[in-house]
Amino acid sequence: MTTLQDTPRASRLHIGLFGRRNSGKSSLLNALTGQQLAIVSAKPGTTTDPVYKSMEVAGLGPVVFIDTAGFDDDEAELGAARVRQTERAAQETDIALVLFPPEAAGDAEALRFAAHLREMGRPVLAVVSQADRLADGGAARVAALRASARVPVLAVSARERRGMEALRREIARLLPEDYALRSITGSLCREGDTVLLVMPQDIQAPKGRLILPQVQTLRELLDKHALVLSCTTDKLDEALALLRRPPHLIITDSQAFRIVHAKKPAASLLTSFSVLFAALKGDLAYFLAGARQLMALRAAGGTHRILIAEACTHKPLAEDIGRVKLPRLLRRELGGEIALDIVSGKDFPEDLTGYDIVIHCGSCMFNRSYVLCRVAEARAAGVPMTNYGLAIAALLGILPDVALPETAEA
Amino acid sequence: MTTLQDTPRASRLHIGLFGRRNSGKSSLLNALTGQQLAIVSAKPGTTTDPVYKSMEVAGLGPVVFIDTAGFDDDEAELGAARVRQTERAAQETDIALVLFPPEAAGDAEALRFAAHLREMGRPVLAVVSQADRLADGGAARVAALRASARVPVLAVSARERRGMEALRREIARLLPEDYALRSITGSLCREGDTVLLVMPQDIQAPKGRLILPQVQTLRELLDKHALVLSCTTDKLDEALALLRRPPHLIITDSQAFRIVHAKKPAASLLTSFSVLFAALKGDLAYFLAGARQLMALRAAGGTHRILIAEACTHKPLAEDIGRVKLPRLLRRELGGEIALDIVSGKDFPEDLTGYDIVIHCGSCMFNRSYVLCRVAEARAAGVPMTNYGLAIAALLGILPDVALPETAEA
Repeated sequence: MTTLQDTPRASRLHIGLFGRRNSGKSSLLNALTGQQLAIVSAKPGTTTDPVYKSMEVAGLGPVVFIDTAGFDDDEAELGAARVRQTERAAQETDIALVLFPPEAAGDAEALRFAAHLREMGRPVLAVVSQADRLADGGAARVAALRASARVPVLAVSARERRGMEALRREIARLLPEDYALRSITGSLCREGDTVLLVMPQDIQAPKGRLILPQVQTLRELLDKHALVLSCTTDKLDEALALLRRPPHLIITDSQAFRIVHAKKPAASLLTSFSVLFAALKGDLAYFLAGARQLMALRAAGGTHRILIAEACTHKPLAEDIGRVKLPRLLRRELGGEIALDIVSGKDFPEDLTGYDIVIHCGSCMFNRSYVLCRVAEARAAGVPMTNYGLAIAALLGILPDVALPETAEA
Repeated sequence: MTTLQDTPRASRLHIGLFGRRNSGKSSLLNALTGQQLAIVSAKPGTTTDPVYKSMEVAGLGPVVFIDTAGFDDDEAELGAARVRQTERAAQETDIALVLFPPEAAGDAEALRFAAHLREMGRPVLAVVSQADRLADGGAARVAALRASARVPVLAVSARERRGMEALRREIARLLPEDYALRSITGSLCREGDTVLLVMPQDIQAPKGRLILPQVQTLRELLDKHALVLSCTTDKLDEALALLRRPPHLIITDSQAFRIVHAKKPAASLLTSFSVLFAALKGDLAYFLAGARQLMALRAAGGTHRILIAEACTHKPLAEDIGRVKLPRLLRRELGGEIALDIVSGKDFPEDLTGYDIVIHCGSCMFNRSYVLCRVAEARAAGVPMTNYGLAIAALLGILPDVALPETAEA
């Protein structure tokens, strides 16, 4: 029995496994965790999605391994799909392990891919696998790869369980610097602060659940030992009246931004879950600039070509924010013609140049590495990008009143 | 991409599918949902666990189908495991569909099982499947089964998508009466009430998550339009001082029962998540009696033979409630020798007669039908049963001060 209480996949350290077929990716996974049982969930791979294996690894905490197709797994028409799948895996990867089995014959592609990963800014670790099959335990191969791949290299033997502890230590050493520190509320909330969460539940989450940003934010606030009052939008007045002092911070669902802004005490900071996720998952500075450029479209007139991108692939809800509420607000506030494209899941146009702006959801289902790849693509195409919360605040004219978490980028 | 926001499996209507091999269970599932895509998750079946398929069905909401092995799937040594698997599926089933394919040859076992399900109190619907293969569309077979099975009978054709709407309606009609109404907080909280949740986060949930009872309770309170203040145990004084009036209700993690009881305002009701789940998932009256019988062990002296049963199969935590804290409390408060057995997941002894009492976890991962089967087994063996929250309250001597939700059984 699995539990619904596991760390969300998007919050796990993403370790990408790359290599050719039979390079020992699966054996390495099993050896690294010490037991088959450690795999808490494995989603079957497809030609477009790799296999995700979530587990706890000693010293690393909750991780998800992305097990990609072999570089040489080019069964006929699957070749192009395999390349796309591997590229997507690279985008999601926080740390990459590139495997080199004893036979050096197929190294060229693995070395090319390792270089590509480094260009993407990903920490790369080359792993000489199945080292028990090499007479010197892999020493010569390690030395050769260190010279050619110019990344750290380790030899391991999954069969003999050798090198596992060193591998874990090396992964820990390569962790992105801000990995463990990244916070949702950042400087906006400290121990003992009172925080008010405005969380309408009408259409947002399935029965018996809270949506992920609400759960993650509440958990972080409790970890910070804050006092957290939660209410639906209609109870905002009562909630404020209940407190002996105004809340230090109000975090609202972006859909209630207008009402909460109108009622908030002067002493309270105001932000939204989606605005916080702009900093957590994306590039806050670029998204802020994007929100301002969105408003410049109003003055520009004409047809506004807007891409709305959602991470979730759920069936559209009746009052879906991406498909109904945000488009309505855009039409009302921007004027002119709106030419709208909506994509979901991992569908994202390869060519963004036709758009005036990209408006992205909060990305609670994506990890930061992946979202930053989308930001980089928008930036490369010269297209502004923002997210739901910032776009709504800008369209309502309240962006200057919205509190932003301090981050490295901001 | 699946979402972590789905309705928890334990909160879904459990529809058990029973029949022999090739009786059309899978085709029926696909036809019922109209599309393969509707299957949001499918866990592979094993010899001990059936396949669970979670989906939304129009008119029924979030359901999980339990797809069992065929009655005749008796491959050599798997026979006994198949029987246990099917029996467990029956225990979890809220509503049973027993399939009868056109050939009547294998009906005897299906009819026996339908009778067994009825004896267990499960609503049963007999389904003549693959009716397109019968000349009269299944009319004769329906009439014959109605007489012999003495349950409602319907004919369907998955291939021709016939009878699906009638099947959905019939399932809706057979829903347990209290199915949609069952509430966690029941009469203890109404719209506009202030509720304080004491939720220590130190060891309980993985990073970025809240444990299921906390999520479900908070969601219900927001659905009730209550004002919900959440804090960790160390912030209880500050939380109470923040409010202009004492909370109507305090719901604490049972592990903080003693502290919260000592500090609670006289005007506030006090209960725990686990106590609420005793009523939601189990038989509150039996569990209450069990908690009182637990205290009678103190007077009895001698060796106390206690079974602790947990639903989760997670690795034991450092300060695990079932394995460390509760045993410590039992030893301190009951005196004498404690002979403790601890089981987890679906392991549950077939023979309970050796125990003085069963203490069960809150069962957030189980559905009510399944927990009530365990209660029935304890009752049949003449063994008292209670749960973590009620046991802790009894051991601390504060049970009379604990507020209980009104339920049919209480």
